[in-house]
Amino acid sequence: MNNLGIVKRNIIRADKAAVEKLSRFGVATIHEAMGRVGLMKPYMRPIYNEARICGTAVTVLLQPGDNWMMHVAAEQLQPGDVAVAACTTDNADGFFGDLLATSFQARGAVGLIIDGGVRDVKDLTEMKFPVFSKAIHAKGTIKATLGSVNVPVVCAGAQVNPGDVVVADIDGVVVVPAAIAQKVADAAEAREANEGDKRAIFASGVLGLDYYKMREGLAKAGLRYID
Amino acid sequence: MNNLGIVKRNIIRADKAAVEKLSRFGVATIHEAMGRVGLMKPYMRPIYNEARICGTAVTVLLQPGDNWMMHVAAEQLQPGDVAVAACTTDNADGFFGDLLATSFQARGAVGLIIDGGVRDVKDLTEMKFPVFSKAIHAKGTIKATLGSVNVPVVCAGAQVNPGDVVVADIDGVVVVPAAIAQKVADAAEAREANEGDKRAIFASGVLGLDYYKMREGLAKAGLRYID
Amino acid sequence: MNNLGIVKRNIIRADKAAVEKLSRFGVATIHEAMGRVGLMKPYMRPIYNEARICGTAVTVLLQPGDNWMMHVAAEQLQPGDVAVAACTTDNADGFFGDLLATSFQARGAVGLIIDGGVRDVKDLTEMKFPVFSKAIHAKGTIKATLGSVNVPVVCAGAQVNPGDVVVADIDGVVVVPAAIAQKVADAAEAREANEGDKRAIFASGVLGLDYYKMREGLAKAGLRYID
Amino acid sequence: MNNLGIVKRNIIRADKAAVEKLSRFGVATIHEAMGRVGLMKPYMRPIYNEARICGTAVTVLLQPGDNWMMHVAAEQLQPGDVAVAACTTDNADGFFGDLLATSFQARGAVGLIIDGGVRDVKDLTEMKFPVFSKAIHAKGTIKATLGSVNVPVVCAGAQVNPGDVVVADIDGVVVVPAAIAQKVADAAEAREANEGDKRAIFASGVLGLDYYKMREGLAKAGLRYID
Amino acid sequence: MNNLGIVKRNIIRADKAAVEKLSRFGVATIHEAMGRVGLMKPYMRPIYNEARICGTAVTVLLQPGDNWMMHVAAEQLQPGDVAVAACTTDNADGFFGDLLATSFQARGAVGLIIDGGVRDVKDLTEMKFPVFSKAIHAKGTIKATLGSVNVPVVCAGAQVNPGDVVVADIDGVVVVPAAIAQKVADAAEAREANEGDKRAIFASGVLGLDYYKMREGLAKAGLRYID
Amino acid sequence: MNNLGIVKRNIIRADKAAVEKLSRFGVATIHEAMGRVGLMKPYMRPIYNEARICGTAVTVLLQPGDNWMMHVAAEQLQPGDVAVAACTTDNADGFFGDLLATSFQARGAVGLIIDGGVRDVKDLTEMKFPVFSKAIHAKGTIKATLGSVNVPVVCAGAQVNPGDVVVADIDGVVVVPAAIAQKVADAAEAREANEGDKRAIFASGVLGLDYYKMREGLAKAGLRYID
Repeated sequence: MNNLGIVKRNIIRADKAAVEKLSRFGVATIHEAMGRVGLMKPYMRPIYNEARICGTAVTVLLQPGDNWMMHVAAEQLQPGDVAVAACTTDNADGFFGDLLATSFQARGAVGLIIDGGVRDVKDLTEMKFPVFSKAIHAKGTIKATLGSVNVPVVCAGAQVNPGDVVVADIDGVVVVPAAIAQKVADAAEAREANEGDKRAIFASGVLGLDYYKMREGLAKAGLRYID
Repeated sequence: MNNLGIVKRNIIRADKAAVEKLSRFGVATIHEAMGRVGLMKPYMRPIYNEARICGTAVTVLLQPGDNWMMHVAAEQLQPGDVAVAACTTDNADGFFGDLLATSFQARGAVGLIIDGGVRDVKDLTEMKFPVFSKAIHAKGTIKATLGSVNVPVVCAGAQVNPGDVVVADIDGVVVVPAAIAQKVADAAEAREANEGDKRAIFASGVLGLDYYKMREGLAKAGLRYID
Repeated sequence: MNNLGIVKRNIIRADKAAVEKLSRFGVATIHEAMGRVGLMKPYMRPIYNEARICGTAVTVLLQPGDNWMMHVAAEQLQPGDVAVAACTTDNADGFFGDLLATSFQARGAVGLIIDGGVRDVKDLTEMKFPVFSKAIHAKGTIKATLGSVNVPVVCAGAQVNPGDVVVADIDGVVVVPAAIAQKVADAAEAREANEGDKRAIFASGVLGLDYYKMREGLAKAGLRYID
Repeated sequence: MNNLGIVKRNIIRADKAAVEKLSRFGVATIHEAMGRVGLMKPYMRPIYNEARICGTAVTVLLQPGDNWMMHVAAEQLQPGDVAVAACTTDNADGFFGDLLATSFQARGAVGLIIDGGVRDVKDLTEMKFPVFSKAIHAKGTIKATLGSVNVPVVCAGAQVNPGDVVVADIDGVVVVPAAIAQKVADAAEAREANEGDKRAIFASGVLGLDYYKMREGLAKAGLRYID
Repeated sequence: MNNLGIVKRNIIRADKAAVEKLSRFGVATIHEAMGRVGLMKPYMRPIYNEARICGTAVTVLLQPGDNWMMHVAAEQLQPGDVAVAACTTDNADGFFGDLLATSFQARGAVGLIIDGGVRDVKDLTEMKFPVFSKAIHAKGTIKATLGSVNVPVVCAGAQVNPGDVVVADIDGVVVVPAAIAQKVADAAEAREANEGDKRAIFASGVLGLDYYKMREGLAKAGLRYID
Repeated sequence: MNNLGIVKRNIIRADKAAVEKLSRFGVATIHEAMGRVGLMKPYMRPIYNEARICGTAVTVLLQPGDNWMMHVAAEQLQPGDVAVAACTTDNADGFFGDLLATSFQARGAVGLIIDGGVRDVKDLTEMKFPVFSKAIHAKGTIKATLGSVNVPVVCAGAQVNPGDVVVADIDGVVVVPAAIAQKVADAAEAREANEGDKRAIFASGVLGLDYYKMREGLAKAGLRYID
């Protein structure tokens, strides 16, 4: 009845080849390839502009003002994982800093997505440990109450299951369910294929109105041109 | 009775010389020169710090989650124009990305102001296409419902008419009505003239209290110095 | 009954040696050393990423849309001071720009903390005058109504008395009461001492679970590992 | 170049018959009849649930923390007018209370729409003086800086010209330009005519899917029913 | 790969007896009985204070500014159901009004939970049709783009599966997964049993400090009483 | 160095006669009588419209998600006290419900001001226990970490010392320092004295412009009347 106080050790991670393939595409492209779902809310921002993450989710459910479970999560991280931390209530405390980042990097983790605050941002930036968060906040936390690791969580409005692929770049954060990771990667690749061509076409002055044959639809919808 | 579904083709753009002159001044200076009106809300931020825009407005009225009218607007853009996009309701979807930016640049547009979201921010930054927006969000949009192009809009709290001059820099976004563009440019120039002198004076240690002769006014208002 | 219209000239500044020592530590460390109190709200952000301040507070109580007291405050600033500006109500106008910054720098001030807006951000960045603010906004202000200088203020949720030490970096802003500045500096130094060691330990793969001996506490709290 | 410091005495108010007719319809209906434009942002809320306004706008442009122009506006109010107050910047101070309301009522005004704060809400409720505002806030204001009366303003995201009809109820606030007030009133009447019938039809169990013949369109758009 | 454009007709609703039992308890009690999970964000508020809902979820995934799927959902509603509407992006338009409410009531639905806006609030209140929403907004919507009915959704930060029990009262909205509805109802009953006793005890002046035997724990945690 | 983990038992409460006198005036009047300072932020709202509080403050410093100190505070409450609860960080959990309210009422407390969330609002309303809070939220809290009782706190942006008078009504919450309570009460009485007269004068149609002799000042400031 209660998913607090649980650490699930064995999770099924998305296929490595699919993760690698997804890492080649931007968040906007992947989100389109999935049918425009799976995005976190736009308040999730990188702590430095070049931050970019693509990895398999180890989920963390935090209690407000308490980062005990981040230490528990560290042990569950494997190379290529990204920690995805939700909180049982809105809270922007600084749950994560340079020491935890050192530990996470030592485990091979590729980044952190947290619906809360982080601190030691100068150090994290120098370490090139990418973090996407709701806030930057020096406020420290305690270690007193149990949350969970590797239970399904809702993070910044998106459902994340352990093992899902999470991709983050300057455009936002998208979650790809493990079961469809390969399909989405293929769809993203197909989308991307003719983008270069399109850019050249639009750069030459061709309008989207003509390239996408929108004029008829617009006229039918009642668009009137006046002088 | 309805300003949706309209594209106005012939608009009266502010005088080119006035636009060029306004491009030399910062947003704060221009806003002061206009009598402290015309600013958009401060939630409008550049997608990269060096972004700067000065151009004549082609206005776009969008529907939430729908960027059809951006394509319609592209055709109305002329060299030196800036697209100014409002939405019929609050919406932070990613209405604009690298392909539309390529098209806008091909038309000679100098930037975009949008009371909504944008995506492909890494590409836009590399293309040096300046955008000021309410949000960065990978969320894609559809092309299904009519808005309008070149009708008067309220964008981020400011009234914008087609042809108005819009200037944007790191301090914000200001709208200069076309009819007074030359006057405002002249007033801005006058304001700016003695700024260099003033900086030297204040750098030498002279206080604003003395330079602006504020001491008497403060005393009259009842200011008390205590030890 | 009224703390408006007052300028206190003689304030007791925190001990210089304590201020110097505090300047060596980050905001997160100092906040921890104080017992996790004294932080401003996380909406206070630097106008450029490298901004960093450590100085003694000259407090300013502003009226909305009015920066008269900033000029009054300039005269009270001494080398090593930081201006800390609160407002009698929520207001994000641009109370401060490059001319006031020139004046503040001429007095030896080391920065500004303001629960309001600032402008001329490009100039401030080039001058390397660090500012932490609630907003960037080109909106100009008038000089018509009295506030106060060097009265106790509540700035972004934190109590600040004149002479307190204020430290700000990318993680936030912390206020250290003058009376305990030396003690806090010593405590911060003690905290920092073994951080380098800890980083090496965590980098080697030791988990916080083991280093901090958390396993027993977690088990007692009822943490269950499942497969 | 500056629309501050101006009081326009003669304004063209919307036709009285049109105003009276509009007063019979709800805000949602009128907004639909206008083609879904003209609404203020939804943060504008009534100070008591039964508040309802329909009148011709006397516009007020306030400075932050200053209600001087409310007194100037009082003199311009005529029976049937509604004061519509915008502010040159975001500000939630209590610009309006029971004394001004008494004065406004004495002039025949039917309410206040204000993109700012109000106070004395208990008195206003007992007086049955309807107000729609952004905030309730006891914070007092001064009388020191000029704004304007009866200039065009942007209030809570909507453009309002003096003389326009403003209608407000629990669903929000809508602005009807004076020039089209009669047309909009007629369109609203037409819309309303068959609403009673529709309610009876839906109450009988007929689905909108069938009544509006949506099934074909949904199928064409690709809707799939699964079990 | 895409959960848009789908209507699932057969869903497994929580057991009727469990729903009936849950309807006897408040949201706070149920949320406690579940282990403090399952709450929606506190921005979800009732449109009238007495609003109260307990029913089985028919989920709706809306597109911004588009309420087409509300009509599709109507047909899937059975007596005792509550419609739970999420949106693919943040949007506060008025997706729902009195006609849809009439239709929903005719189907036997007991209320609506919507992470968006509603309108016709006066009518809804008179009809006693309880709604919990993010906003009240007169803004109308179109019927142009497919969402889904009875797919899993994230609504106001909570995961909702079709058939789950949703309980809402003035304290908020809680989601009880169908599979554990009976267990949670039993746990809620157990919690409630001695609440009446406790109230009498506290009313007599016994302190929680003594009743819950907190004094030792507080002393151990280091609490100091000073004079 | 740390004000956590402390309960101060002996506090100096404001004079009873002053508190009684202050209880006769509204928050707006008292705030004016104090020189327009001492207000909490306007996000603090009553849980029911008729809620009204006037009492001496027993302050509580809470940790996020933890209401342990509310129980500790209960013991310190005396007849006529109001509990004023701040939190070490932003948090909207439901720290307070009907059982604590029963306990507080048994101690003679007259209400609660909390910069956080409350729950059991239906019960609290029926008990007529007035609460002003930042949020209503069913989210439960734990009892694990020490805060303090009767230390100075910053609550919703206002400094509150134990023993200060706190007055709350529908217009907001104001804090009157104990040392000046009698003076403020006298000043409030003086302000209120001629309000009745003024209302009659304005009701008769006299304008504030004339009553307050504003016309000259407005003309001097440059106000222009145009037709």
